[in-house]
Amino acid sequence: MAERIDPWGSGEVQDYRRLMTDFGIEPMEPYREAFKANRYIRRGIIFGHRDFGRIADSILKKKPYVMMTGLMPSGKFHFGHKMVADQIIWHQSCGASVYVCAADLEAYVVRNIPLAEAREIAITEYLTNYLALGLKPPFTFWFQTDYKVPYYRLRDMMSKEVTFNELKAIYGEITTGKIFSAITQSADILHPQLSGPQPTVVPVGVDQDPHIRLTRDIAARMAHSYKMVAPSATYHTFMSGLSGGKMSSSNPASYIALTDAPEVAKKKVMSAKTGGRATVEEQKKLGGVPDSCSVYELCRYHLIEDDKKLEEMRAKCESGMIMCGECKKNCAGLLERFLIEHQKKRVEAGRQARKLVEELR
Amino acid sequence: MAERIDPWGSGEVQDYRRLMTDFGIEPMEPYREAFKANRYIRRGIIFGHRDFGRIADSILKKKPYVMMTGLMPSGKFHFGHKMVADQIIWHQSCGASVYVCAADLEAYVVRNIPLAEAREIAITEYLTNYLALGLKPPFTFWFQTDYKVPYYRLRDMMSKEVTFNELKAIYGEITTGKIFSAITQSADILHPQLSGPQPTVVPVGVDQDPHIRLTRDIAARMAHSYKMVAPSATYHTFMSGLSGGKMSSSNPASYIALTDAPEVAKKKVMSAKTGGRATVEEQKKLGGVPDSCSVYELCRYHLIEDDKKLEEMRAKCESGMIMCGECKKNCAGLLERFLIEHQKKRVEAGRQARKLVEELR
Repeated sequence: MAERIDPWGSGEVQDYRRLMTDFGIEPMEPYREAFKANRYIRRGIIFGHRDFGRIADSILKKKPYVMMTGLMPSGKFHFGHKMVADQIIWHQSCGASVYVCAADLEAYVVRNIPLAEAREIAITEYLTNYLALGLKPPFTFWFQTDYKVPYYRLRDMMSKEVTFNELKAIYGEITTGKIFSAITQSADILHPQLSGPQPTVVPVGVDQDPHIRLTRDIAARMAHSYKMVAPSATYHTFMSGLSGGKMSSSNPASYIALTDAPEVAKKKVMSAKTGGRATVEEQKKLGGVPDSCSVYELCRYHLIEDDKKLEEMRAKCESGMIMCGECKKNCAGLLERFLIEHQKKRVEAGRQARKLVEELR
Repeated sequence: MAERIDPWGSGEVQDYRRLMTDFGIEPMEPYREAFKANRYIRRGIIFGHRDFGRIADSILKKKPYVMMTGLMPSGKFHFGHKMVADQIIWHQSCGASVYVCAADLEAYVVRNIPLAEAREIAITEYLTNYLALGLKPPFTFWFQTDYKVPYYRLRDMMSKEVTFNELKAIYGEITTGKIFSAITQSADILHPQLSGPQPTVVPVGVDQDPHIRLTRDIAARMAHSYKMVAPSATYHTFMSGLSGGKMSSSNPASYIALTDAPEVAKKKVMSAKTGGRATVEEQKKLGGVPDSCSVYELCRYHLIEDDKKLEEMRAKCESGMIMCGECKKNCAGLLERFLIEHQKKRVEAGRQARKLVEELR
């Protein structure tokens, strides 16, 4: 069944395949069996990697490794972000030392979000949800504009190793602020190795690969001063927006936030784009198309852990046994249960998040 | 007499005048009388300024102000550098809070000097000589790669306010490392005002003016987050190299280091380029040209404090009363005395410098 819901089955096949061949991202397939407990790996949502071998080795042999991720403190924390949170938490459960960076410099430079506001968003949206979802202290959390000297020094030294043209190729229209932000991002990924080389994995969407490649290059170029292992990465496919197209923080109708009131969230599901046919008759005859359905996607990514139940959902749809209205109601029910439970956890998590950040000072 | 040894009397008249009219540097003339105790101001070596009014006001009314300067930790500390050191010390005697930045990031990025080596040079060459010349603790001293979070945050925020084209216009061929270094330089100048606006003076050679202008612009652009006074600057003319042309750290024959053995230094004076004529006869008839003489320059900038004695030296030369050999011997004698005295002071100053830097950690 895992094969059937492979991301290659989706409309974006060509793109993902091309990305992999063009840039040398390896397929995740060889690791699927060993790490099938992870829903995203098992279902092919995490479809590719670079150097995951050394991470797999660390996990299986219980050797130390680092899981590093950055968050952009802007907007609401939605189910697209939850996918990354789940991966952080999974790596922590596998023995990783967790490093989470609040990219407040990037938010300031690229999106004009004042640092104080970025700090609040990082605490109340990201950190609180991470904790409520199961991330456990201790882990390393930092703001790009409020950290420690060895980090800033690494960043400064790295600036010497990156050409302007490389940055331009990756980021397109580049500004001085973006250059600072980009180099900072590489320092975010590499600085856990200031105390010595360590396998490091960065779970990302495939659009982040150019930056991963740059950071891998920089790690090698820093050999004159620091011994660092090139960071590994895993690549996941993106969730679509609820009305098709992209899920985007700037379009609240496209996502469900983890802080949406359950009633609001349920309504979003009820009006979401599905893979249904033009008429009930047609759908009964031809069946629906789960791979084009944002409701199915929500279940596949998040709400249904049990593969058998997910397959049942798919089979009922494809055979025309269930219509979209009923299916949406089922999904809305699962979503409601999740949100009520999660939002309860957020109360204590919120206090914990603020305390954690205060202790950074 | 001060008029006669005005820098406009030198061969570079056109350039300095043009710089002033083109870029709006004001002449120092109105402040010459009030600050005639300062040899460089009195002799027109400090010939121009921007917003020196608010510094003059601070000095005369004994209000707080900041003297900020940066040092490039590479090569030997020579008499060209002493000119800046004397200005730092003068401002300290006038009541300024002194801020001295060791630009180790710049040395690393632009000249490929490892940070550890830059640190040693900053201590043994610069800081030791500053102290031996009379700079008194407490003052603020820092390395660009080893400072404090509010400084790095200011720098990060400033990166948003500077366009790539501005940097290109100032620095020509620009690299990512140079961009970091340039923004850092502005943060060096402005960060003393993190705790509140304060008049700040930066004594520089006129070649540094584009950077001063940029930093003044940035100060204004940061108004949304920080209230900062645009930094003032004073501009001095450069000493020539001993054999004519530029005095340059990369050409030891062009300068006298403050750590040169007196015998070595004396020899450098004896073979220095003078304003002498082709033959003794000619010189007796026409007199020498002190404004083209690096020996006269050394005395004017450093070795002769008393204007009457300097004028005597000039008059004897111009009237053909003294030949270059004898004049050089006089200068070499003054130099020897200075170096012996200075190098004695360096012993204690060296220990003090290292202790100061250790205490930064």
